[in-house]
Amino acid sequence: MDTVILNVGGTFFEISWKLLKRHPGTRLAELSEKCSEFRKEKNEYYFDRNPEIFNVILDFYRYGELHFSSNLCTRLLQKELHFWNIECSMESCCIHPYLKLENQVQMLDKIKEPRNTCHECFDTLPRGVRIRRRIWTIMEEPLSSKAAKVYMVFYFMVILISTVVILLSTHEDFREERREFNGNSTEMRIYLQAHHVNKKVITFVLNRPFQVLTILERMTDLFFIIEMTVRFSVCPCKKRFFKSFLNVLDLIINIAIIAKFVLENYYIAIYKSQILYIMFASCHAVTIFRLTRVFRFALQSSGIRILFLALWDSLKDLSVLLLMCLTLAVLFANMIFYAEFSNFTFSNMFQGIWFAIVTMTTVGYGDIYPVTTIGCIVGALCALSGIIILAVPIAIVAGNFTTYYKKYTEFQMIKGKEDDRPLNRSQISI
Amino acid sequence: MDTVILNVGGTFFEISWKLLKRHPGTRLAELSEKCSEFRKEKNEYYFDRNPEIFNVILDFYRYGELHFSSNLCTRLLQKELHFWNIECSMESCCIHPYLKLENQVQMLDKIKEPRNTCHECFDTLPRGVRIRRRIWTIMEEPLSSKAAKVYMVFYFMVILISTVVILLSTHEDFREERREFNGNSTEMRIYLQAHHVNKKVITFVLNRPFQVLTILERMTDLFFIIEMTVRFSVCPCKKRFFKSFLNVLDLIINIAIIAKFVLENYYIAIYKSQILYIMFASCHAVTIFRLTRVFRFALQSSGIRILFLALWDSLKDLSVLLLMCLTLAVLFANMIFYAEFSNFTFSNMFQGIWFAIVTMTTVGYGDIYPVTTIGCIVGALCALSGIIILAVPIAIVAGNFTTYYKKYTEFQMIKGKEDDRPLNRSQISI
Amino acid sequence: MDTVILNVGGTFFEISWKLLKRHPGTRLAELSEKCSEFRKEKNEYYFDRNPEIFNVILDFYRYGELHFSSNLCTRLLQKELHFWNIECSMESCCIHPYLKLENQVQMLDKIKEPRNTCHECFDTLPRGVRIRRRIWTIMEEPLSSKAAKVYMVFYFMVILISTVVILLSTHEDFREERREFNGNSTEMRIYLQAHHVNKKVITFVLNRPFQVLTILERMTDLFFIIEMTVRFSVCPCKKRFFKSFLNVLDLIINIAIIAKFVLENYYIAIYKSQILYIMFASCHAVTIFRLTRVFRFALQSSGIRILFLALWDSLKDLSVLLLMCLTLAVLFANMIFYAEFSNFTFSNMFQGIWFAIVTMTTVGYGDIYPVTTIGCIVGALCALSGIIILAVPIAIVAGNFTTYYKKYTEFQMIKGKEDDRPLNRSQISI
Amino acid sequence: MDTVILNVGGTFFEISWKLLKRHPGTRLAELSEKCSEFRKEKNEYYFDRNPEIFNVILDFYRYGELHFSSNLCTRLLQKELHFWNIECSMESCCIHPYLKLENQVQMLDKIKEPRNTCHECFDTLPRGVRIRRRIWTIMEEPLSSKAAKVYMVFYFMVILISTVVILLSTHEDFREERREFNGNSTEMRIYLQAHHVNKKVITFVLNRPFQVLTILERMTDLFFIIEMTVRFSVCPCKKRFFKSFLNVLDLIINIAIIAKFVLENYYIAIYKSQILYIMFASCHAVTIFRLTRVFRFALQSSGIRILFLALWDSLKDLSVLLLMCLTLAVLFANMIFYAEFSNFTFSNMFQGIWFAIVTMTTVGYGDIYPVTTIGCIVGALCALSGIIILAVPIAIVAGNFTTYYKKYTEFQMIKGKEDDRPLNRSQISI
Repeated sequence: MDTVILNVGGTFFEISWKLLKRHPGTRLAELSEKCSEFRKEKNEYYFDRNPEIFNVILDFYRYGELHFSSNLCTRLLQKELHFWNIECSMESCCIHPYLKLENQVQMLDKIKEPRNTCHECFDTLPRGVRIRRRIWTIMEEPLSSKAAKVYMVFYFMVILISTVVILLSTHEDFREERREFNGNSTEMRIYLQAHHVNKKVITFVLNRPFQVLTILERMTDLFFIIEMTVRFSVCPCKKRFFKSFLNVLDLIINIAIIAKFVLENYYIAIYKSQILYIMFASCHAVTIFRLTRVFRFALQSSGIRILFLALWDSLKDLSVLLLMCLTLAVLFANMIFYAEFSNFTFSNMFQGIWFAIVTMTTVGYGDIYPVTTIGCIVGALCALSGIIILAVPIAIVAGNFTTYYKKYTEFQMIKGKEDDRPLNRSQISI
Repeated sequence: MDTVILNVGGTFFEISWKLLKRHPGTRLAELSEKCSEFRKEKNEYYFDRNPEIFNVILDFYRYGELHFSSNLCTRLLQKELHFWNIECSMESCCIHPYLKLENQVQMLDKIKEPRNTCHECFDTLPRGVRIRRRIWTIMEEPLSSKAAKVYMVFYFMVILISTVVILLSTHEDFREERREFNGNSTEMRIYLQAHHVNKKVITFVLNRPFQVLTILERMTDLFFIIEMTVRFSVCPCKKRFFKSFLNVLDLIINIAIIAKFVLENYYIAIYKSQILYIMFASCHAVTIFRLTRVFRFALQSSGIRILFLALWDSLKDLSVLLLMCLTLAVLFANMIFYAEFSNFTFSNMFQGIWFAIVTMTTVGYGDIYPVTTIGCIVGALCALSGIIILAVPIAIVAGNFTTYYKKYTEFQMIKGKEDDRPLNRSQISI
Repeated sequence: MDTVILNVGGTFFEISWKLLKRHPGTRLAELSEKCSEFRKEKNEYYFDRNPEIFNVILDFYRYGELHFSSNLCTRLLQKELHFWNIECSMESCCIHPYLKLENQVQMLDKIKEPRNTCHECFDTLPRGVRIRRRIWTIMEEPLSSKAAKVYMVFYFMVILISTVVILLSTHEDFREERREFNGNSTEMRIYLQAHHVNKKVITFVLNRPFQVLTILERMTDLFFIIEMTVRFSVCPCKKRFFKSFLNVLDLIINIAIIAKFVLENYYIAIYKSQILYIMFASCHAVTIFRLTRVFRFALQSSGIRILFLALWDSLKDLSVLLLMCLTLAVLFANMIFYAEFSNFTFSNMFQGIWFAIVTMTTVGYGDIYPVTTIGCIVGALCALSGIIILAVPIAIVAGNFTTYYKKYTEFQMIKGKEDDRPLNRSQISI
Repeated sequence: MDTVILNVGGTFFEISWKLLKRHPGTRLAELSEKCSEFRKEKNEYYFDRNPEIFNVILDFYRYGELHFSSNLCTRLLQKELHFWNIECSMESCCIHPYLKLENQVQMLDKIKEPRNTCHECFDTLPRGVRIRRRIWTIMEEPLSSKAAKVYMVFYFMVILISTVVILLSTHEDFREERREFNGNSTEMRIYLQAHHVNKKVITFVLNRPFQVLTILERMTDLFFIIEMTVRFSVCPCKKRFFKSFLNVLDLIINIAIIAKFVLENYYIAIYKSQILYIMFASCHAVTIFRLTRVFRFALQSSGIRILFLALWDSLKDLSVLLLMCLTLAVLFANMIFYAEFSNFTFSNMFQGIWFAIVTMTTVGYGDIYPVTTIGCIVGALCALSGIIILAVPIAIVAGNFTTYYKKYTEFQMIKGKEDDRPLNRSQISI
């Protein structure tokens, strides 16, 4: 008899021994009458397996390739392949459902996974430092305990106050004349005007924010310095501390705070010296980046995490596009510069680049615009090419976001359905 | 014999008793030779069921998990699971078609479901108040009867007239000098100019809309007050009346109308006192919100309802993004403020925030724009990040809208095909 | 025996007579031993049909509902339903593939179908008027013959020349002083200036386009009048002629051309009288709409037809959104008007509406912008709500276009594969 | 016996001889008892094939049409059709999976395929010119060897330097007074001012870039000329050299460089003669297009290639849309011109076209904007129609990009999985 009859879950399959023997090492190639599955009376082998998927298995023997009906479950197939002892990669024409599932598992991992503290570091520490660990979890894992939540709200409030104070400090309604110039104010003003310092700088030198704002700013500054010191001192592994981008930013901000505090006493020197002014301005400009700390808490929420994941995934492509935009901007800048040679607003090519960017992003302030016919044609082309080029990053970000969002919605629905059986990796891995 | 032969609709299945007994309580585990389905002559059990889905059922016994061929109908599977007395949730790798159908049912419900009046409230009222109910349905259910439709059109006209009147009242071509200043006009003008009130305010104090506009405004105002009074008096449950957002808005608008009416007599005082002016302006600004009443009727049409549903579903995500935009705006405001320190238009950071928002939304009025090199770089980054960040809300709203829209189109097609068998929840629930 | 054994293409099915008899009139319910399909020796009925789809047929008897495996071909099912004499509509849970195919057929029809002339009208005419028909096809069916193509190119050229002439006529470099004012020019100028007519009007009264432009304009005008006269005279059914939107537009344009020609002789009167001027300007403004004639030819190409189909399908939704935008614009206009009460640029609410539209579309000319804090907040909200609301029409148009485009690409591929077997409706209808 | 029993892989099929004989030439029609597959004892024909797909094959005999279960693999079906000797094209209702796979193969080809040098040309050359081939590969195939990579980086640097030099040359901070005017500068200035040349031109005539910038520019110019000469001389087939768009561009740029070099010596003449100035400006404007050379290297990366492929695929549709936009712009220009007849900024229709384009692209510089009521309505319609029309190119580009991007991601995943079995055309062709 050159064919063998296989009874798989009640369905009969027949295949020639020749085909089976082509793949030695697999379970079917090793079949013999001594197997426990052999039924002598019917001259057949019986297996308690899914007959539908067994057809896929037999196709492997028939054609030497692994093809796959797209309606079957890939995980079931995986199980069968393991049972029949077949090791073969799927053909490229049928691999799509596999890849999709694998991709899905990766995405779900990214969505769920909260950033963990390295518990190992704490576990290696002596048991006595439980208080240290407690402070760390309160500060770094905002949803871990009630105390942590209270601390998070407090932290939020401080950031909010500090931001509002910084904003208000620059508004003239919240500034008063410096007490130091008891009558010398006019003298100082004359001195500054004589030295060609512009009016806005003069008002900033002669005035200062209300006392209450200054005090609040000092207090919030102090809070952030203390907060970071405490966080660093309780951190289990100091090395990893400065590998986090947010922690490095914190350090820079705190150094800027101290520098600002020192520099503030030399305000007249600042407004006279270009370099000192740039340093002072940079310190101020950096300080407000503590607002990014808000994102750290925000990332605890899945909704915002998927936005960040989408942006992060798009980053590489976006940077390439940014370079392309810049290249295009330089080309347009060059063209507009020569087209508008008689136009004073395009005094150099950097103005042209600024024009090109403002036009391509369709912002169009109107501080600079073409006048000549050729200039207008270049401008129109610039606007149109901007719309078309910028359609691509929009497509990328929107596409990535939509993908994550769908997956997230699905994840929420599954979670809602079977709370007792959480979706974990081992369960849906292929 | 350790295996059992099952004849399901003519197809034979064979499975070992051992596997079946693993899940006690299910129909297959309880099989015995006393069952009516047992055919002694052939030593088999016969069932009048779908053989294709039965394979899924047997897989549950074979693997202990519920997997699912994606081409089968989920409702049929539901029926079979019920017949075979199996209670088990689907594996996460095959649950997708289930979730999709469930999601679909929820969406169709949202699309169809018109907002109902609480008929229960009316049903508890004494039978005599039929007229009250009739007025209520005319006013609240615009498509319920012919009278209701006529009333809706009339209501529309009144809103339209009232809006046009409000718009025209502010136009100088529709204003005349107040009669009260018989010759005193110039005197008044001098008085006002002496008190530094700006020109536009002066023209508004010295002029007033044409008599006919004023009369029309009073009439429409009166109509809205009466309309609300009637609607409140016939409302079956007064408590729920003010739970509706639109009704609360109506109340506020009507209070504003009365306040406006009272304040109008003190127009000179209004333009002198800051507080009175703010009150008066607020009353005016609020009045026009009666235009939102138009949306209530519009919601009767499915087309607009899906737009609102899409916006409503997107609201939570949009508010998160709005906050992110604001945070980014503050960061950019800070940077541009220090970068453009010598530029007068950026006089404080609030100007910077305004600049950042105008740039990120690509509106770019041009009232305020960077001049220095660093300022231009910050501005360009601001515009680009705006485009990228705003791609996300566009993706969210467009995505939600498209989903609802597709579902709605499908719903229309099904309805068109089988009017006698309307799609209702019980029919397609899983 | 209470069950019947059916051999369908070699696969055996078994079902109880009871279930079959539930649906009298169907082929299976009418089975008896006298049927030619009955095989006495095996006590079975044999059918030469697809066994996989037969399972769907049996499910109808088993569950009383028509369900459908999504991998099967709907047209094959249709054939089987017809063979088995079953009339039943698909359950709503499985109807999706049906609807999809039907929808597809409708779309393909829309894409292919070129607008036909009513050949019936010609067929009813006496045979002698063959020349009339020939002229008609040359003028109306640009791709029908070589002569028609030549005529189309000529028509294109005339439109192009006429458009360029109209554009150039307004440019000062292509205008000269009117010969009629032999020295009186200055006198006329003084007269006009004395009557407060603005400078631009004066230049238009005192100058006129170059002689060559005027002649070209007259010639093209004449061509269009003749073209329409001829087309109307050869038209087989005069009634339908004016049912076409483009033909009505042609008529209006031609009337405008004649009116313009008459009015041109009274140019001084025109610039003095407001009404005459508006008439004259309207005539000019209308004339250029002959450019829309270009679209008629463009529609012969499938690529552009799908764009128009997409826009046409979106029209209803877009108009609803336009109204919503307008409503929002009025609300924002009202708010900004009171917020910016001290700002002269917002002199009335119509200015506010203009501001709201310019902001919502993110155009932002900068002719009008808020200055106060509340005004800026209203402006920012306006810009953001504009972006969100305008995401919807973009989604609608882009969605519709993408759908048609995909279908079109598919259609092209099918056509390329089997030119001998064109895809026609009867073939793929369900 | 009028039916035949076929045992395909253990599953039995029965079909009447009559149906089989309808399609002579196919393997099943040629079956006879003499075939090796015939088993006399069981009166059946045995085949070692997939039973599931065999059903599709039998359907061809049953219905005379080729239908297809969408879950099956198209390549397996292909194999079966070949085995059973059936030549028939798929029905249009089931052809979709086929087209999809074919389309996929085409796309993958486009994504992978790097632009090859014609190796044939080199192979026909005498063996001695190995050095020539080496230079060619270094210059044209940047990723082929280490030397090629070093050369690419060097080339990049030169382009970067040349671009920066061009940009800086126009900035006044990097310009100095020409040495040639030893004291005559003022004289020259007066001469120029007397001849109505504008200020910006004057500064460009009187100043010149720093010596160091001029030297760098000369050096980079020289490099590009030499580079092209070398590349042309080693090019194996001179004919194909100028068929490449980038090479033609290089030639033009190099001619422009030489022309620029010659013209620079007559700078005063240039700024006096309009024609010479245009030539000089064109030379300068063309030079910077060497920046496009960057794209050539960029195309080596798959990421950017898909962007270019997407843009290239969209090009035809985009050009049609551009024409439609232009047509719309002319229509709006005409309307706004007559609506704003009293507004000086709309001095001619070309201004109107510029306004329409700036509005439709939502750039809105604000250099020109409507003032009258009708003008504002036209402007608003223009902005809205712009948003709607421009939604289409965004949809096209974004759609094409997304398609390529998905395919590319998939391709990356497959490559990652089975490096030993690269996906090649022959493998997945249908």
